[in-house]
Amino acid sequence: MASIPVGILGATGMVGQQFIALLAQHPWFKVEWLGASQRSEGKAFRDAAAWRLPNALPDDVAKKIVNSATPGNAPKLVFSGLDSSVAGEIEAAFAAAGHIVVSNSRNYRMHDTVPLMIPEVNAEHLALLDAQGKAEGWRGRIVTNPNCATVVLAMALAPLRQFGLETTLVTTLQAISGAGYPGVPSWDILGNIIPHIGGGEEEKIETETAKILGALGQNRIDNHPVRVSATTTRVPVQNGHTASVSVGLAQQPTPEAVINAWNLFRGRPQELELPSAPPQPLVYLNEVNRPQPLLDANRDGGMTVTIGRLRPCPLSTYKFVALGHNTIRGAAGAAILNAELMHRQGLL
Amino acid sequence: MASIPVGILGATGMVGQQFIALLAQHPWFKVEWLGASQRSEGKAFRDAAAWRLPNALPDDVAKKIVNSATPGNAPKLVFSGLDSSVAGEIEAAFAAAGHIVVSNSRNYRMHDTVPLMIPEVNAEHLALLDAQGKAEGWRGRIVTNPNCATVVLAMALAPLRQFGLETTLVTTLQAISGAGYPGVPSWDILGNIIPHIGGGEEEKIETETAKILGALGQNRIDNHPVRVSATTTRVPVQNGHTASVSVGLAQQPTPEAVINAWNLFRGRPQELELPSAPPQPLVYLNEVNRPQPLLDANRDGGMTVTIGRLRPCPLSTYKFVALGHNTIRGAAGAAILNAELMHRQGLL
Amino acid sequence: MASIPVGILGATGMVGQQFIALLAQHPWFKVEWLGASQRSEGKAFRDAAAWRLPNALPDDVAKKIVNSATPGNAPKLVFSGLDSSVAGEIEAAFAAAGHIVVSNSRNYRMHDTVPLMIPEVNAEHLALLDAQGKAEGWRGRIVTNPNCATVVLAMALAPLRQFGLETTLVTTLQAISGAGYPGVPSWDILGNIIPHIGGGEEEKIETETAKILGALGQNRIDNHPVRVSATTTRVPVQNGHTASVSVGLAQQPTPEAVINAWNLFRGRPQELELPSAPPQPLVYLNEVNRPQPLLDANRDGGMTVTIGRLRPCPLSTYKFVALGHNTIRGAAGAAILNAELMHRQGLL
Amino acid sequence: MASIPVGILGATGMVGQQFIALLAQHPWFKVEWLGASQRSEGKAFRDAAAWRLPNALPDDVAKKIVNSATPGNAPKLVFSGLDSSVAGEIEAAFAAAGHIVVSNSRNYRMHDTVPLMIPEVNAEHLALLDAQGKAEGWRGRIVTNPNCATVVLAMALAPLRQFGLETTLVTTLQAISGAGYPGVPSWDILGNIIPHIGGGEEEKIETETAKILGALGQNRIDNHPVRVSATTTRVPVQNGHTASVSVGLAQQPTPEAVINAWNLFRGRPQELELPSAPPQPLVYLNEVNRPQPLLDANRDGGMTVTIGRLRPCPLSTYKFVALGHNTIRGAAGAAILNAELMHRQGLL
Repeated sequence: MASIPVGILGATGMVGQQFIALLAQHPWFKVEWLGASQRSEGKAFRDAAAWRLPNALPDDVAKKIVNSATPGNAPKLVFSGLDSSVAGEIEAAFAAAGHIVVSNSRNYRMHDTVPLMIPEVNAEHLALLDAQGKAEGWRGRIVTNPNCATVVLAMALAPLRQFGLETTLVTTLQAISGAGYPGVPSWDILGNIIPHIGGGEEEKIETETAKILGALGQNRIDNHPVRVSATTTRVPVQNGHTASVSVGLAQQPTPEAVINAWNLFRGRPQELELPSAPPQPLVYLNEVNRPQPLLDANRDGGMTVTIGRLRPCPLSTYKFVALGHNTIRGAAGAAILNAELMHRQGLL
Repeated sequence: MASIPVGILGATGMVGQQFIALLAQHPWFKVEWLGASQRSEGKAFRDAAAWRLPNALPDDVAKKIVNSATPGNAPKLVFSGLDSSVAGEIEAAFAAAGHIVVSNSRNYRMHDTVPLMIPEVNAEHLALLDAQGKAEGWRGRIVTNPNCATVVLAMALAPLRQFGLETTLVTTLQAISGAGYPGVPSWDILGNIIPHIGGGEEEKIETETAKILGALGQNRIDNHPVRVSATTTRVPVQNGHTASVSVGLAQQPTPEAVINAWNLFRGRPQELELPSAPPQPLVYLNEVNRPQPLLDANRDGGMTVTIGRLRPCPLSTYKFVALGHNTIRGAAGAAILNAELMHRQGLL
Repeated sequence: MASIPVGILGATGMVGQQFIALLAQHPWFKVEWLGASQRSEGKAFRDAAAWRLPNALPDDVAKKIVNSATPGNAPKLVFSGLDSSVAGEIEAAFAAAGHIVVSNSRNYRMHDTVPLMIPEVNAEHLALLDAQGKAEGWRGRIVTNPNCATVVLAMALAPLRQFGLETTLVTTLQAISGAGYPGVPSWDILGNIIPHIGGGEEEKIETETAKILGALGQNRIDNHPVRVSATTTRVPVQNGHTASVSVGLAQQPTPEAVINAWNLFRGRPQELELPSAPPQPLVYLNEVNRPQPLLDANRDGGMTVTIGRLRPCPLSTYKFVALGHNTIRGAAGAAILNAELMHRQGLL
Repeated sequence: MASIPVGILGATGMVGQQFIALLAQHPWFKVEWLGASQRSEGKAFRDAAAWRLPNALPDDVAKKIVNSATPGNAPKLVFSGLDSSVAGEIEAAFAAAGHIVVSNSRNYRMHDTVPLMIPEVNAEHLALLDAQGKAEGWRGRIVTNPNCATVVLAMALAPLRQFGLETTLVTTLQAISGAGYPGVPSWDILGNIIPHIGGGEEEKIETETAKILGALGQNRIDNHPVRVSATTTRVPVQNGHTASVSVGLAQQPTPEAVINAWNLFRGRPQELELPSAPPQPLVYLNEVNRPQPLLDANRDGGMTVTIGRLRPCPLSTYKFVALGHNTIRGAAGAAILNAELMHRQGLL
C-alpha cells in the first residue's frame, strides 16, 4: 500500500487525537510527524497527552516523538487541529515554508483566496489555490473546512439552492466535544443548557455558510445571497451537533421534492469514491423523532449528515432538523476528505 | 390562618405531586382531598404513590386516603393534574357537579368560554366564566393554564405586543419532567437530544399563544394576530424549558426599550400581591450565557421567567432566549396562581 | 459462507436487538426467525419494534415477520433475550420441543444440570448437558450465561483462584442499558444514583459467581468456596458495568503476579479462535484512572473485560476495579460466544 | 440582629461561593471581607468571579471589593475555602496574625493539635486548641472539617462505635462539585464513571476517619482503632456523595438497634440548637432504593446525612448506603457549624 506521509499540527488536542484515530487505517495517508506546543516537545506522544478517545491509540503513533510546531522536518501535507489562538501564525509559517496545510482552524477560513471546503458542496472552490500563493505570499497553501456547526447546516442547505434559497434561521444544540479539551466544565453543563458558545460561533455560521454555498468568482468566492440567522447552544451530549432549521425558498417545492433533493445529493467525493466519502452524504430519516445524536451521528463513520422532521413553516417555507458528527464530519474527517480530494486532483 | 380546602385530581402523578409540594406551606389553600385512578383508590397516599420530589412529602398528605376521581365529597376548588387521556371526561364531570376546576390539562384550553390564563398577561380573560356555564352546561367552571412551553414563550412575548408583535419563530429545549412519570426512558435521552415531543406540542405552542395574548371579545377571545412557528426538542435536563426565539415587530424599539419592557412588566398578581406571584415576573439577565436551567429555573420559587441574549435578528427584528420552570410556572404553580387570582376576585 | 440458521426469542427487546446487531456480520450464524410477544406477531420487525441501537438495523431482519414465541418453525438453535417473567415457560417449551436454547435469562441459571457459562472460565461445564435431558425431561437443551454484572466480576476472579480465592466484596455501578427498555425512567437517574437494582441483582451476583467458578461434579457443579458480598447501584451511564472489588486470597501474590495472571489468562474461545472471542479476555490498564465505561467498555467489540487500580486492601488482600460491556459481554455477546463454543464442540 | 463579621478566604472558588450562599441569611455571621488570589484583588466580587450557584448572589457581597489573601484588615473569624496548593501558607499566616481560621482545606487536618471536627461527633476535640498556639507558634487558631466524603462516612459510623466498630470497607460515588471549578471536564464524566479521585482521596478517608472518631488524649487525638479501606469514584451527579459501606462490629446488634442508633443520634449542635444544626443529623430511610443524591442530599438544608439499605454482610457484619451533601455538610456548611459551636463555646 502506497502511503503518503502526513503531519498533524496540534496533535495532542481533541481534534488532533481525532485525526490520529481516523488516519489509523487510512489507505493513503500515514501519520509520520506530530507537532504540538513546547510543553510536549521531545516527549513520546503517549507521554505528552492523555488519550481521550474510545478508539485505541495506534502503537506506532504512541511511540512517536512530538515535535515543536515549526516547519522543517514535517511532511509536505500537514493537517492542523491547532487552537485558533496560535493557528494564525503557525499555519502561515508552514504555508510559507511550502507545506500544504489542511486546517480545521478558523483563522484563514474567510480569506479571499483560501478555500472553505465541503467537497460534496463546493469542490470547484479549490481553484482559489491558483491565486493564493501570490495573494498571501506563500510557497505552500492553506485549505480549510468550516466550523463544526456550519458543516451540518451548509450540507443540508446545499441541495436547496435549486429551489431559490433565500433565508435560514437556525438554532443549534451542540455537543461538548466541540469545545475541545478540557472544554466545558462538567459543573456548567451536566443536566443543563448553556445558550451561548464563545468565539463568535453564531457569526461563523452566518458568514461561513454564504461563502461555502457561493460561486467561484475572480480569485474569490461570490457569496451565496442566503441570509442566515443563528442561535447556538451547548447541550449535554458527547458528540453530534443538532440544528433546528427554518428556510425560506423562492419556489414552493413539494416535501417529496425536498426529500429527494437531499437523498439524491452527491458530490465529487462520491464520484471519485474517496476513502472517507459516505455513500450518501445526506440521509433523510422518516421517523418522527429523528435524527438523534446517539443513534445517528456515527452513521457511515460519522461522515453522513442526517435530516428529519421536514414540515411547512408558518413563517418561511420549510422547517427541518439536521444532525452531524462535529469532530468527524465537522472537523477531522472534514479535513481528511479535503486532503483526499486534493490528492485525487493532483494538488498535493 | 384561614384555610380554603382544595382537592387534587391526578394527585399521584408528577404534576399532582408538584401541587402537593407547592401547597404544603400555602397561606390560603389546604389540601383536603386527593383523587386518582382506581388503582390508588382507598390507599393512603404514601402507599399509592412513590414520592418523587426532593421536597419532603407533608405528613398529613402522606396519610390521606386517595379517592376515586369522581365528584361527590371533594371540596369546591379542585386542581387538576390529570393526564389528558382522562381529563376531558373527569373535569367535565366535576364542573357539571358544581366544582371550580383549575386545570393544567390541555383538554379544555381552546374551548371558547374556557379562560387560558397567565394572570400577569390576561387576568381579564376570567370574564369568560360568565358565559361558560351556559355554553358548556356546567354549574361549576373550568379554568386552564397553558402548556408548559407555551407559558415561557407567552410571558416573554406579552410585553412585546406594544411594539407590534407580528411573528415568532421558536425552538424549545424542554426538560424531561415535562413528560411526566415514568415519562422519557433514560436510554432515549441520557446524553442525547430527541427532536420531537408528542401530543401536538408544537401545535399547542402555536395556537395557545395567540389565545393567551388575545383580547377579551364577545364570549370568546379574539386571538392576537401573531403568527407562531415552533420546533420542540427534548433535552437531558431535569427541570426548566429553554426557548430560542426570533420575533418580528412592526416597530423598531431599541434593545434598551425591549429590556425595559420585560423588566418593568407587572400584572394583576403583583398588584394584588398574590402569594405565589413573583415580584418581577420577567427578569432580563445581562450575562452573555444566561438564562440556564440549573441556575435560573428556580428563581423566586420557579415562578419567574428569565430572559437573556437579546440581539438583532438578521431575518426578523430581535432574537432572544427565555427560560421557565416547566412544572412550577409551567404547570402546578401556574394553576395555583390562577386560583389565587380567582379567590381575590371572588370567583371561588 | 456456510450459515447456521438461528432464531431469537424476545427479538424486539433490548437484548434481542443486541443479538440482531451482533449477528448481522456473523460468519456462522444467520438470523432466520424472530419470536416475540403476541403484540408483535405477524408484523414485520421494523413495524413491531422501534430500533434503539446506533448500529444499523440489517435490511433483511427489518423485513422479517415476527412469530409468536412458540416452538414449531424456529431453527434448532435459538437465542433467548426473553424477560424473566416469561422466559421460564417459553424456554422450557422450546427445550422440550428439541431446540438448543442459548439463553440470557436468569430462570434456569441455577438449575443443577444447566450450564452457567463463561467459555473462557468454565468451558468444561458444558458436560452437564449430558445429564440435562433426563433431569429436565427435554429433548433439547438450555445453556445460560450469567447476569450482566456477574460476568464482569467472575471473569476478573477466575485467574485469582490459583491464589486461593476466599472472599469477594463488590460494589457495582451499573449502566442503564442493563434494565432493558423502557427500563429506568430518566427522571430517576439523570444526574442521580439509585443504590438498588431490583430482581435480586445482589443475590444473583453472590450465587452465580460460585457456580461459574466451581468445578464439574457428578451431574452438577460443585460451587467454588468463595464467599461473595455484593451491593449494586444504578448510575447514569449508557453501557458498561463497573465493579469496585476487594478480594481475600489465601496466598500473598505480588501485584505483578496478579496482573500477569489477568493479562495472560486465556480460555477455550481463544484456543479455538471462536469468532466472538477477544484476543485477550482480561486486560489490565496501568493508567490510574481506568477502566472507564466510555473509553473501555467497547474494547474488542465489547467482549474484553478491563481491570485497573490494583492495590493492597487494608481489610483483605487486594482491591481493584473491573469493567465490562453489559449488553455485549454481559448478555447477547456472551450467549453468542456460548453458541460458538457449542458449535465447535459438536453440540448444536 | 447582632452580627459577627467574618471573612472568606478563597471567596471566588466553589467552596467560597457556597460560604457566601449559606451565610446570606445567617443569624450570627455577616460576610464583611473577601480574600482571593491576586488576579481578583481590587475588583468587585461580581466582576472577579462568575457566580455559579442557583442561589442568588447577595447584592452586598456582589459589590464588595476582593482583597488579596493576606492578613491585615480581615475580621478575626475567617472561613477558608482555599485550594490546598496555597492553603498551607496562607492559613498559617492568618493564624499567626491572630485570626481564627475555620478551614475546609486539607492541609492542617492531621496536625496533632488541629481539631478535625464534626460537631455532632467530636465536639470535645475543640479542647486541642489549648495546646495549638504553643505547638504551632500561632496567636490565632486553625480548626478544620473533614474531606467531603469522609464526613458522610464518619457521621454514619459514629453511632456504631458503641457496637465495637472494627472495620469499614467503603466505595464512594462522588459528585462533580467536589472537584471545585472548573473541576472535572465534561468530556471525562458525562455518561461516564472515573474510578479514581486525585489528591489522595482514599487515604484521606482512611486516615481522617480514625482521627474524627478518636478520643481526646494528651494534646492530641488517640485514633479510633477502626481499620478503613476506601475506593473512590467520580460519577455524573451534581451534588451529593454516596457511600456503599460494609462494617465489621465486635457485637451483633439487631438491625433495629442499628437503625435506632442512627435515628436517635444527636450531638452538641442539637443540644445547643446551633443555627445550622439539622434536627436529626442521621436519618434512616426505609425505602429500598434510598438514599439518592437528587432526592435526599438537600434534606434540612443539606446538613443531614441519610442512610438506607441496612442488611447483613456475608463478609463482615452489616452493609448499608450513606449519602451527604458534599459542598454543604461536606464543606462550607461543615465549617459554619464548626464556627457556630466555637461561638457558643466562647472560642471566637
